[in-house]
Parts: sequence; C-alpha cells; structure tokens
Amino acid sequence: MKTRITELLGIKYPIVCGGMAWIGRAEMASAVSNAGGLGLVTALTQPSPEALLKEIERCRGMTDKPFGVNLTFTPRPNKVPYEAYAEAIAASGVKIVETAGNNPERFIPIFKKAGVTIIHKCTAVRHGVSAEKLGCDVISMDGWECAGSPGRDEVGNMVLIPCAADHIKVPLLASGGMGDGRSLAAALALGADGINMGTRFMATKEAPIPEAFKQALLDADERGSVHIMKSINRPRRVFRNKASLEILEIEKQPGAGYPEFGHLVSGERNRVGYENGDPQYAAFSSGPVLGLIKDIPSCKELLDRMVAEAQQIARTRMADALL
Amino acid sequence: MKTRITELLGIKYPIVCGGMAWIGRAEMASAVSNAGGLGLVTALTQPSPEALLKEIERCRGMTDKPFGVNLTFTPRPNKVPYEAYAEAIAASGVKIVETAGNNPERFIPIFKKAGVTIIHKCTAVRHGVSAEKLGCDVISMDGWECAGSPGRDEVGNMVLIPCAADHIKVPLLASGGMGDGRSLAAALALGADGINMGTRFMATKEAPIPEAFKQALLDADERGSVHIMKSINRPRRVFRNKASLEILEIEKQPGAGYPEFGHLVSGERNRVGYENGDPQYAAFSSGPVLGLIKDIPSCKELLDRMVAEAQQIARTRMADALL
Repeated sequence: MKTRITELLGIKYPIVCGGMAWIGRAEMASAVSNAGGLGLVTALTQPSPEALLKEIERCRGMTDKPFGVNLTFTPRPNKVPYEAYAEAIAASGVKIVETAGNNPERFIPIFKKAGVTIIHKCTAVRHGVSAEKLGCDVISMDGWECAGSPGRDEVGNMVLIPCAADHIKVPLLASGGMGDGRSLAAALALGADGINMGTRFMATKEAPIPEAFKQALLDADERGSVHIMKSINRPRRVFRNKASLEILEIEKQPGAGYPEFGHLVSGERNRVGYENGDPQYAAFSSGPVLGLIKDIPSCKELLDRMVAEAQQIARTRMADALL
Repeated sequence: MKTRITELLGIKYPIVCGGMAWIGRAEMASAVSNAGGLGLVTALTQPSPEALLKEIERCRGMTDKPFGVNLTFTPRPNKVPYEAYAEAIAASGVKIVETAGNNPERFIPIFKKAGVTIIHKCTAVRHGVSAEKLGCDVISMDGWECAGSPGRDEVGNMVLIPCAADHIKVPLLASGGMGDGRSLAAALALGADGINMGTRFMATKEAPIPEAFKQALLDADERGSVHIMKSINRPRRVFRNKASLEILEIEKQPGAGYPEFGHLVSGERNRVGYENGDPQYAAFSSGPVLGLIKDIPSCKELLDRMVAEAQQIARTRMADALL
C-alpha cells in the first residue's frame, strides 16, 4: 500500500496501533511494527522516564522496523513528570511520537529539535486544526466510536473524518471503530490517509494481556462498550463489564462524583485486573469495534488480511457499483 | 451505478431520501426521484389516509420515476389510525414503502398482499435481523449519527454497517451521517448497497421549507445537533437551537419529564416553525452531517455530484492507495 502515511512514517501499511495503557509494551509495539504497521510504546505505562528508555531499547531489540512512543497527558491524580518523559523520548532516538489528551504545544519544541515526527490525536476538527498550526505532522482524529476518551462533541467518524479532511492539510488518521478491511477502505474513502486502531489489537496473539481478556473481547458484540463518567463531563468509553456497570449505577445517584466510583476506573486497578486475568475487575477502555472481532490472529495475520480485504473491496464492491 | 438497491427498486442511484415529517411532501419526494434517487412521501404528514392518497396522486403527477411512502409508527399523543394509512398505501398502487419506528410485523401482510417492497428502518442489528425474518425486503440501518430517533445503543455507522452486513442477507442501506460522495463510497466499502439520506436533502432547492431553515443548516457545523430526551430514555437528535437548548436545560432539573418540555418538541410546533420560517422555534430533527452541508443545490445537482465524487474516489484515492 501507498498513502501519505506510509510515505511519511516509512511503514508498509497505513495502520497505527494507538497508545494503550498497560498494553503498549515492547511486545505489542514490536509485533505491530514487524507486521508492517506502526507500533507504539506507551510512555506512561512505564513508571519513570528511565524505565521508558529501557522499554524503548527492549522494543528496538525486537524489531528493526520503525516504531513510536505514545505520550498522553490527561488530568491524573499524581503529578506526572511529562517534560522528563518527553525529553527521554527525544533522547531515545525514536523518530515518531503520538501525543494525546491535551494541547501538545509545550512539548513540540522538544520533539522538533530532535527531528521527531509528531502525530497528535484529538477528538475535534478545531483541535486538529490548532495542532496542525502548532507544527504537528499528522492528525489522528478520534471519532465518538473510540475507546477511552472520545471528547464531548459526540461526532462519529462517518462525519468527523470528512469534516477533518476538509480542514486539515497534513496526513490524517481515522481513529475509532477500526477493525477490519472494511474499516480501512471506508476510512480512505472518507478522506483519511490511514487508520489508528486500538481495541482490535488487544485481541491478537501478541497482545500482552491474559487470554481471559481476549476471550471477553471476542464474546462481546458492538454493544459491548459503555460510556462512563458522563456525569462529571469527562466521558470515557470502556468495556461493558461488572466494574463499568457498577460505575453507571453509582453515577445515577444524585451528587455522586469521582470519589464515589474512581476506585473502579482504570489506572492501578486496571493493572491489577490484567495481572489477575479478571476482565470484570476494572473499567478498561474498549470500543464498539468489539462487534467486528471474531478471532485472535497474530498481528501479521490481522494486517495482511485487512489490507487484502480492503484491496478486494476496491476491486469488486466499489468497482462493480461505481465504475 | 449498479447495486442490489438500484436493481431491486428500479432507480438510477442507490440513494433514498428517508421519511421526514412535514418535509416529505410531493415536492420533496418527486424531486429526489426525478434526480435518480428514491423519494418518499411521509404518510403521517398528511392529516388522514384520504389526504395521503391525494398527496400520492399529486406526487405521481410530478414524476414518472419510482417513489415510495414512509410510515413511521412511534408512540404519539393521539391515536393514529396506522392500519388505515397502511391500507391506503397498499391501495394507492405505490410499490415501495419505508416502515420505521417500531416492529413492522402487523403491517407486513397488508403490504405483501399488494406486492409492495418493504424497506424497514431500524437502529440495531438484532432488529434488522428480526425484520428480515418477518419478510422485509431491504434493511435501512440507522446509525447513531442519524437525525431523529437513533435508538439507545449509540453505535455509529463505522461499526454498525459492517456488523449489519455480517448478519443481514437482504440489501442494506446505510442511514445517518450521509452527506456527500465520500459518505456514499464509505457506505459501499462498509458493506451497504446504498444509502439513506435525510438532513442533507433539507438543504436542497426543492425542500419545501423556508429559506431561513436552509440557511441555518448551511451555517451549522458537525456540532450543530444535540440529543434531547435522553432523560426519559427516548433520545432524539435535533438541531442545536434555542428550543433544543431550552429542552436540555429543563431536562437537567430533577423530576422534569415530557410534560415540562414536550411543548418544545416537534409535532405541531414543528409545523408552526416551518410556517413561520423560524428555525429557532422548535426542536426539529437533524444530524451531525450538517458539517458536510456547504451549499443548497437542486436534488439533481446533489445526487449527480455525489455519484461523480464517489466514482472519483474509487478511481483515484482508493486505487492509488490499494491497487
């Protein structure tokens, strides 16, 4: 395949594995990159900038293909030394970073100075336009289908991607609801130059999560995710499980806020859930793309199949209808 | 163009204009059908089955192309003689009906007996599967992007359409968020055989609504619609205006229900809003596709352009990336 994304990032397929807390380790990132996509090591999954540097080295030992690092800056209970993480990424020699969660302005000089290509992920066209003006090289638009934080505009990718394509000149990734060759073909049709995919990569052989989680993803359908934290105006899309349904019940109670349900939301609890192999234990991010997950392939099997399916769609369905 | 939809319905382009209260009159329906799509006369916009028969006759005088009738059965304050409307449609000689709003089972024998092709519009894969089993000929899947009633699953079309295509064998229409050639190309890529479009048709020369409404649609962007009535578990996506924002404020008040805001919601008020030319007056249906509306073309200009754009996408963007 050839798009502005494959050209700019030096990868075979225009498919990026978005940053995923606790999952974006060297095993996941290298598997995606070895399969022809772009894998990302998630910076904040590592306990310190020094640990991140070691994880990047470990990933480098597992692939000779390009990979990147995700740095997500969201409000967090403990003060995170974001600048130190950014400096570590710049010093590591990694040439691609994905920023997300907030305005990336203060980190841009750090990355630019080191010649790092910046993918900024955001949930609204106006934020993408701002990030482009600030010098970001790629905009990854996260539609309302996305796992994790979808923003507050609630615009799905069917509309968000063409609107973004009308306003953004740099290469564009469609993120959210991406699961197979149909997603890839549709994203290209809507004006994107590639896709960002997360939840689907959790259900691969190489994803460093317990089999019970992969089976839970496989068993769920397109209704298998719910939005929690709408009551505090910080919506987050997570797997529909015991923990998230409990949160929704707590949120119904008048006056209930983060202190009442925060202990059930991701972070440390998420890590423990993965370690215990209990997919009901914490509210972990996932999207409606669950409806498109029907097996647990290797990353290479998944990406080869997606691209072949998208090519087949272009050759048959699209050509038969349109040409 | 040629898909299972164009073949089954005998139309040039696989583009259906969904049923729209107060807008789906002979002027709108005939304009869409004359442009090569499928126009629909909205049954309940007419005050009686007899008036509907006259409106169908009027439409027949305005086009020699196929058109259909929409029959939406939702909870309504006054008892509506749905059976009488269905019998009128069957007796009218119209050969295509769009049912929506609820399980169509009780009307199917009436339509089948008269040789009417049934398009059933629904918001969930399981409802589409049921409707197919009941004998419906086409399923129109309404994603969370759609104007009006999106159901409660909140699954956008990027995921809903491929999931539906995996489970439904009859021809499939993608509905919600459809506004240009990119939407059409993406819908085909995702597995649909055509699209259903509503809001976009409101901003055409022939739409029988005041210019002030068309200008309001043109001025809005992808954030120009809001969901009201979530507080009573009957979400409805409407234009973001004075009326809908007032409803949202009322819904925030503990214990406030339909009696407190119902006077601001569509129905009679909608009709008056159209008559007065005041787009702020009532909460009328529209979708985020507002972000893709940039002019007020004729229906023929719109459809010709959409199909040309989709063809261009298949020939260039898709082919360059994939083939």
